[in-house]
Amino acid sequence: MKIKQLLPVLSWLPNYKKEWLSGDLSAGLTVGVMLIPQGMAYAMIAGLPPIHGLYASTIPLVLYALLGTSRQLAVGPVAMVSLLTAAGIGALNPESPEVYLYLAVTLAFMAGAIQFLMGVFRLGFLVNFLSHPVISGFTSAAAIIIGLSQLKHLLGIQLPKSEHVHEILLAAGQNIGQTHLVTLGIGIAAIFLIKYIKKLHKAIPGALVAVVLGILAVWGFGLTEQGVKIVGEVPQGLPGFSLPSFDMSTWQSLLTAALTISLVGFMESFAVAKAIQSKHKNYKVDANQELIGLGVANFGAAVFQGYPVTGGFSRTAVNDQAGAKTGLASIISAALIILTLLFLTPLFYYLPNAVLAAVIIVAVLGLINVKEAVHLWHNDRSDFWMLFATFIITLTMGIEIGIGTGVVLSLALVIFRSTKPHVAVLGRVPDSEFYRNIDRFKELEQRPDVLVVRFDGPLYFANLNYFKDKMEALMAKKGEALRLIVLNGDSISHVDSSAVHALEEWIKETQARGIRIHFTSVIGPVRDALRRWGLMEVIGEENFFMSNQRSIDAFDALVKDGSFTKKFKEYAVQASE
Amino acid sequence: MKIKQLLPVLSWLPNYKKEWLSGDLSAGLTVGVMLIPQGMAYAMIAGLPPIHGLYASTIPLVLYALLGTSRQLAVGPVAMVSLLTAAGIGALNPESPEVYLYLAVTLAFMAGAIQFLMGVFRLGFLVNFLSHPVISGFTSAAAIIIGLSQLKHLLGIQLPKSEHVHEILLAAGQNIGQTHLVTLGIGIAAIFLIKYIKKLHKAIPGALVAVVLGILAVWGFGLTEQGVKIVGEVPQGLPGFSLPSFDMSTWQSLLTAALTISLVGFMESFAVAKAIQSKHKNYKVDANQELIGLGVANFGAAVFQGYPVTGGFSRTAVNDQAGAKTGLASIISAALIILTLLFLTPLFYYLPNAVLAAVIIVAVLGLINVKEAVHLWHNDRSDFWMLFATFIITLTMGIEIGIGTGVVLSLALVIFRSTKPHVAVLGRVPDSEFYRNIDRFKELEQRPDVLVVRFDGPLYFANLNYFKDKMEALMAKKGEALRLIVLNGDSISHVDSSAVHALEEWIKETQARGIRIHFTSVIGPVRDALRRWGLMEVIGEENFFMSNQRSIDAFDALVKDGSFTKKFKEYAVQASE
Repeated sequence: MKIKQLLPVLSWLPNYKKEWLSGDLSAGLTVGVMLIPQGMAYAMIAGLPPIHGLYASTIPLVLYALLGTSRQLAVGPVAMVSLLTAAGIGALNPESPEVYLYLAVTLAFMAGAIQFLMGVFRLGFLVNFLSHPVISGFTSAAAIIIGLSQLKHLLGIQLPKSEHVHEILLAAGQNIGQTHLVTLGIGIAAIFLIKYIKKLHKAIPGALVAVVLGILAVWGFGLTEQGVKIVGEVPQGLPGFSLPSFDMSTWQSLLTAALTISLVGFMESFAVAKAIQSKHKNYKVDANQELIGLGVANFGAAVFQGYPVTGGFSRTAVNDQAGAKTGLASIISAALIILTLLFLTPLFYYLPNAVLAAVIIVAVLGLINVKEAVHLWHNDRSDFWMLFATFIITLTMGIEIGIGTGVVLSLALVIFRSTKPHVAVLGRVPDSEFYRNIDRFKELEQRPDVLVVRFDGPLYFANLNYFKDKMEALMAKKGEALRLIVLNGDSISHVDSSAVHALEEWIKETQARGIRIHFTSVIGPVRDALRRWGLMEVIGEENFFMSNQRSIDAFDALVKDGSFTKKFKEYAVQASE
Repeated sequence: MKIKQLLPVLSWLPNYKKEWLSGDLSAGLTVGVMLIPQGMAYAMIAGLPPIHGLYASTIPLVLYALLGTSRQLAVGPVAMVSLLTAAGIGALNPESPEVYLYLAVTLAFMAGAIQFLMGVFRLGFLVNFLSHPVISGFTSAAAIIIGLSQLKHLLGIQLPKSEHVHEILLAAGQNIGQTHLVTLGIGIAAIFLIKYIKKLHKAIPGALVAVVLGILAVWGFGLTEQGVKIVGEVPQGLPGFSLPSFDMSTWQSLLTAALTISLVGFMESFAVAKAIQSKHKNYKVDANQELIGLGVANFGAAVFQGYPVTGGFSRTAVNDQAGAKTGLASIISAALIILTLLFLTPLFYYLPNAVLAAVIIVAVLGLINVKEAVHLWHNDRSDFWMLFATFIITLTMGIEIGIGTGVVLSLALVIFRSTKPHVAVLGRVPDSEFYRNIDRFKELEQRPDVLVVRFDGPLYFANLNYFKDKMEALMAKKGEALRLIVLNGDSISHVDSSAVHALEEWIKETQARGIRIHFTSVIGPVRDALRRWGLMEVIGEENFFMSNQRSIDAFDALVKDGSFTKKFKEYAVQASE
């Protein structure tokens, strides 16, 4: 049992079913065919020669297949992580392509180590702090940044490297006159091909078709002489070994990037793994084991001249649709890439950069999610602003600051929301025992001497003043006739020590005014806290009730037999001591 | 009406009652008499010549009386803010006493400006983020730091300035051999005098008696020749004008200190103002107007050679006990200090520093609160750790980092707590319509085909995975027989957009398994959110109920007339599309 958790491959390989093979084989080949152009294109986003995208599509896939819990997840280079790699390394201004590669494998190692350790220390839950709006705003902005980073390849012009949208646009505007029209033509043709060839038949690998046609066009018409930029020499054979840097100052300068890559990469991967798993009931995705699987996959990228990898959205979806049943599909994809590396790389010599740019642009266009923003605008305005802030800050101040701000803002919103919980005054639904919010339902019954209040949230240090102010205002509204406050406790999920102190003070003051306080349907953990702090005695055990109606009935009985007035006097005496 | 809010003095001065005067007069004089030694002593904590503590006890008090909303609050120098002043200025290593004073008035101006602006922009609620345990841990640690800062005056030795306890203790240990015994004797005698003379009669101003006896002893026995350090020349007359620095780099380097002073000062002041006001029902304390009042008081300190002030705990309590009815008491205190400045300062020449140290030590001893820590240890372990962390970090890493860490930790705890809310499976109380937690009450009725669950907290991005995992585990426990899930909604205080997406997915999946989902007593704001997002249609309006019992009765009726099976099929069809 234990060993299966550490090596999830053992949960499917020993009892592999023959009928899974055809699905795994066709899915593995389909994804492999996608990976060839995508791997090369994404390496270009990362600022690396295309071959490293292929290297990153070999051993990491096999390692994930052995250690990951998802059976359909397609690991490898993805657009977002490639962009984060470029941003992280670019900030250090490496002096040569060799140093750049060295930093890339170091980044893969660091991201892997962070993920591995997070998995070992069971920190997978941290991914929960990325809210839907923040992910959406961040993804849309990153997609725009990635798309614009390819503008130079599409237009065939020189543009400065930048992750700041306005800088790219400004430079592009200044240099648009030098657009290389043949390159642009190839790029636009490739975009249309990739986007619309799927309409003919779903199974056509659009990107690969564009790659093949692009190569043929450049080679056949001699377009390099016209100035079309091509990929050029692509080394043949398997990747050599590489070692990451273990220099402290290098680690320090890459730390933010490594943290962002490990978290964003994990989040993207985990989200798609969960989504696909919910369709297959025969296994479970475990966040912490996923971190370990991705971490080790990144170690693999680090030692075989790759760069940070993670589970990608689009390829995973294709993998699943094409029938992948186990991790064998990924191993087959990796095998196809290895064969490509051994025999086919010379064919990529004439591949125009514009075609790879087209592959990227089509991929990221699908990530820009306007619909979600519109939905949020109509349905949840504060979440819309979270999305918008994350989007704008990512675009203008960079992707790490963007996602960081998004997380902080959305947690701040949670806190701020809890400082002013919803408070409802309840009235009785006629001829029933139900009490509902008087602002929402008509014809509810209210009594001048009874105030029934529901406080919807935990009562803790940051909202206890709000509680007291609100209660005071509600009591003032009731005026002199008020004799009983019923605090409907269902929705008070927690009380902390600060709240207990404040509550005690408020209860004593209120009782001293001759107003009785009842608590109804208080949940267990809150009753425990009140008891531990001795507040049960201040309130009186007899003042806790199962329901609002029972509490009011008990009050009426007290008034009827005259003991309410007596109790009232006792309170007043106690409080003035 | 409006003008009274801007100038709260107008709410009591125009209709001043003659019977208030005796109280105001005696309270004003009592607090004034306390202020003479305290002002001088606290200035010493702040690292300033004693006279500036008296300067800070004049105009600021009058300004607060005009603009503040509390009628008993005694504003002026206090120990905590003095310590923060010393820490903030000390970090800059000012080259001369003149520069030190210049920085002190600048700090007063900045703290005043921050408070004033916070008041204008109605940010008074920010003080709510300081929880009880954080305040307690911070105050105890600051009290120890303040007490230790006086060790050198008490022992009559040289010690390096430091706000790090271990450094002070180490240096004191190394130099303890040089203790000046006469000085120590005076200090200890003063401590006992101040602490125990109150036992004879409450009204005796212990600190002033100690000051007078100290002066007489030094003068009478010629103790200066024995090496007892004295206050020396104290300038006579009113303070001259002073102007704060408006240099940007000075402001930058004082910003953290100014922020801490303005927030901590306001918090201390507001807490005591609120506590006293709850005893007097004839006025209200308003957080934002308090900020404006304290802000302007600090402006006053800045332009009359003072240093940051705020409302203090002990003097306010004395002011109230001595019968203060309005701000006139504070104006009388200020007048007494002005008279002292004009005529009495030469008398302080022989005042031994050890007596001022004794005044401080007695004041701060009362701030060390061990009882609260013990209480928390027994009653709320996580709040105990908040207190402990704040205490230790304040002691070892400094007061600003200490309080900052405390705030961040306690907010993080709020967030973490909300990521794993309490979840209860409910059973029916026999022969009733009440449903309670099956883990807490015995003999509750449960049915194999029905799962009643209560989720105690908001459902939002950081806990929706927890919700799904928990539901899955509970459903697995029920097994195949499960046909109905009743989600008791009282205590779900909020759903955000991420939760709506997750909920929709979960509902569809669960319905597809042939399990019906009912929602009971969902609160208004949550119903609104579900309706806006179209989830009402997914769930079905008919699946919302007022109570658990009603929902289960409706389910039974459906099963009985055969329509549950039909509905089940509909769900299954929808979900597989």
